Amino acid sequence: MLINTDEISAIDQELNTKQPKQIIKYALDKFDNIAISFSGAEDVVLIDLALKAKKDIHVFSLDTGRLHPETYAFIETVRKHYNIDIELVSPKAELLEPFVKEKGLFSFFEDGHTECCGVRKIEPLKRKLSTAQAWITGQRKDQSPGTRQSIPVFQQDTAFKGIDEALYKFNPLANWSSEDVWNYIKMFDVPYNPLHQTGFISIGCQPCTRPVLPNQHEREGRWWWENEGGKECGLHATNIISKS
Amino acid sequence: MLINTDEISAIDQELNTKQPKQIIKYALDKFDNIAISFSGAEDVVLIDLALKAKKDIHVFSLDTGRLHPETYAFIETVRKHYNIDIELVSPKAELLEPFVKEKGLFSFFEDGHTECCGVRKIEPLKRKLSTAQAWITGQRKDQSPGTRQSIPVFQQDTAFKGIDEALYKFNPLANWSSEDVWNYIKMFDVPYNPLHQTGFISIGCQPCTRPVLPNQHEREGRWWWENEGGKECGLHATNIISKS
Amino acid sequence: MLINTDEISAIDQELNTKQPKQIIKYALDKFDNIAISFSGAEDVVLIDLALKAKKDIHVFSLDTGRLHPETYAFIETVRKHYNIDIELVSPKAELLEPFVKEKGLFSFFEDGHTECCGVRKIEPLKRKLSTAQAWITGQRKDQSPGTRQSIPVFQQDTAFKGIDEALYKFNPLANWSSEDVWNYIKMFDVPYNPLHQTGFISIGCQPCTRPVLPNQHEREGRWWWENEGGKECGLHATNIISKS
Amino acid sequence: MLINTDEISAIDQELNTKQPKQIIKYALDKFDNIAISFSGAEDVVLIDLALKAKKDIHVFSLDTGRLHPETYAFIETVRKHYNIDIELVSPKAELLEPFVKEKGLFSFFEDGHTECCGVRKIEPLKRKLSTAQAWITGQRKDQSPGTRQSIPVFQQDTAFKGIDEALYKFNPLANWSSEDVWNYIKMFDVPYNPLHQTGFISIGCQPCTRPVLPNQHEREGRWWWENEGGKECGLHATNIISKS
Repeated sequence: MLINTDEISAIDQELNTKQPKQIIKYALDKFDNIAISFSGAEDVVLIDLALKAKKDIHVFSLDTGRLHPETYAFIETVRKHYNIDIELVSPKAELLEPFVKEKGLFSFFEDGHTECCGVRKIEPLKRKLSTAQAWITGQRKDQSPGTRQSIPVFQQDTAFKGIDEALYKFNPLANWSSEDVWNYIKMFDVPYNPLHQTGFISIGCQPCTRPVLPNQHEREGRWWWENEGGKECGLHATNIISKS
Repeated sequence: MLINTDEISAIDQELNTKQPKQIIKYALDKFDNIAISFSGAEDVVLIDLALKAKKDIHVFSLDTGRLHPETYAFIETVRKHYNIDIELVSPKAELLEPFVKEKGLFSFFEDGHTECCGVRKIEPLKRKLSTAQAWITGQRKDQSPGTRQSIPVFQQDTAFKGIDEALYKFNPLANWSSEDVWNYIKMFDVPYNPLHQTGFISIGCQPCTRPVLPNQHEREGRWWWENEGGKECGLHATNIISKS
Repeated sequence: MLINTDEISAIDQELNTKQPKQIIKYALDKFDNIAISFSGAEDVVLIDLALKAKKDIHVFSLDTGRLHPETYAFIETVRKHYNIDIELVSPKAELLEPFVKEKGLFSFFEDGHTECCGVRKIEPLKRKLSTAQAWITGQRKDQSPGTRQSIPVFQQDTAFKGIDEALYKFNPLANWSSEDVWNYIKMFDVPYNPLHQTGFISIGCQPCTRPVLPNQHEREGRWWWENEGGKECGLHATNIISKS
Repeated sequence: MLINTDEISAIDQELNTKQPKQIIKYALDKFDNIAISFSGAEDVVLIDLALKAKKDIHVFSLDTGRLHPETYAFIETVRKHYNIDIELVSPKAELLEPFVKEKGLFSFFEDGHTECCGVRKIEPLKRKLSTAQAWITGQRKDQSPGTRQSIPVFQQDTAFKGIDEALYKFNPLANWSSEDVWNYIKMFDVPYNPLHQTGFISIGCQPCTRPVLPNQHEREGRWWWENEGGKECGLHATNIISKS
């Protein structure tokens, strides 16, 4: 399915005033082959919302091999709670082994997280998305002061290619705040990662995530040794591209 | 020193537009015998501010015997960082022993925190305040939806008696938000309780404090098994009285 | 009741070949007013054994105000599991307050644990023992290479005075090894302090106890910044006296 | 290099009376292409000993993707401390992904650890060993009551194939006790996994390892939900084969 730029704008504009639940329903109706990306954090609400719209959904997570033990346990909790499959995409041994042999397990603290994210997140994601027409993410405008302020609800994903070459991306939570997400979690008794009970807001790989102090922005808990404002792992590369 | 109701109102009104630093300076100038109450949490900014106004300050904490190990360590950190004495007021063995023998160490989960706070916090505080003319606390309006919304900057403390019978109370942070406090802590490299790095916002006794989830109000981490809205240990009983 | 030295030796010699259960039964039969000392660690087996011999026992612990949160919780677990009173003896505020005001909360790291143990353990123990004829402890020969190798099963406690001036002391576990104690705990499903699951063997006050590495002696986890060989808090001062 | 059964026995018998350091020296001299297996636990002494015998050693670990964060950090500590490369062998994405999609991340608790160990440990090890003539392991007789009591110092590894088909295996610590290993670590200030400070003795994958209580055997901390006596992941399959 190919959607031209004008149509994309029109769809985005229309969905932009809708609730996440309606956006997800639209997405699941429009594309047969659409995957929901689940990070092991508060984007669990995507799964909860999607299952209210459709029984048979397709969920995947990136298992970088460096997630917190609590996150692995939480992914299993979600799998059992909703009785769904969760596809865990893993890095390729043939890329990971030479990288780690040369640079060790914590090179990101020395020369930045791009190389490690490339092997552990981007290659597996690319591989995964190449089998789909579209994907659904938990991105929100309020998550990152530098890179996520103008996230659309619907867009073409120019950073990756799908099964039909073009790939589309829905961000149903774009206009929700962190508070909206947590109100939803509490109201509907959605299971959540227990790390959220120990000061973690944003959750990614274990060595690259830390709890934040009261009143700190959640993004201060990610890649804190690097510059402010451009903290993206590359999953959502269009955010960075669109800024230039 | 006896201050009549009209004067109290006038002082409060005047101080209400001032910055915490000015309020503390006023307090330390007005009363020779004035004690700063330090809870082991973010009210450490009171100490930092007070030392900018006066070298010789008088700080006390309530050592209930049930604080977190991290809080005991933090109190010591503060003592050494600022090179000050911190008076730790302890419960009386003759009150504590029969109470614990009869009811065990966790009776508050069954019949409320009032009795335990009475023995471990209120009696020691009463004893301590009976030797002072006035005290300074870290109370803020934004701390408690139910009980702290109308905290004045200056007031008579009608719940306790001072050395001259009447006792006065300053709340220099009344108009600051949690964000203001944390901006101050970060800007001036004020030491903070490491529990704040693991999801704790409000910090009291170990069994009666817990971390809060993202976007939860800090007071949800205190006496969470009891009703909302009236969560005070009795230190600031005037907050509750003034509501009736 | 006054027991002369020869009798003491004879009783000790007779009991020395008996099992802990028989020793405890003897002790509880011989003295009406006899207290069992419970530290919140593996000496919980004393309570388990005593209740098999007699329904109405008298148990106390020293609540120094600095125990681990896990130990407070464990003491409550024991209280409820066996449905017994546990008397918690606390330090006197009038001794504790000036000590902590002058030296802070961690003076033991600088000038040794004697002063702090004096205020938080010895004075309360002395007060408690002055109301009893005899006491039962969990001391074992294998606990301390320097001070406990010749612990008798029965002895006069010359370090403290009882209600009748003379005070007697039973150490029913003297000849048991750590392994014996743990076999008992596992065989009879005796509740144990959860700290034992995180590397702690010997458990005392939180700042003065730490887990030990595999194959380290348990006493290396106590007052580790001080010299080997004399690690006693004074509860069992006769151990040190008897060495000179 | 092909060594016949009689020679193997003779070498084993000779080395059996030697110290680990001599055994390792012999191994490194005899085989050019010999790899040291490092699990991230106390077998770090193998690395320490090997570097005393030869500058240029070849070390590898199995990165199952489920190690403790502390173990990843420790592997990096060892890499930097000794300034050596550590090759981390990873599971193949094409084996891991279908297994996890079908059974989730914790299937071992339901149908045993064999399948997960197969994908995460055995296949990568097999791949790794197929490039070597011989390997050196940290196995000890005292580690496992059921499976390791008759570990030789030198043996043919019939469970795996090496670069020349036949594969040989040295177990230089076979005759050392846990106490010997820890005495060595402390005497030579060898870095150790910080998990050993929290009650862990044996350390493997995070979900399948737990601390043990005082006086429990270290193997009780591994795959505790399965039967006693046969706790091997398959790395040392000859131990199980040789029992039948």
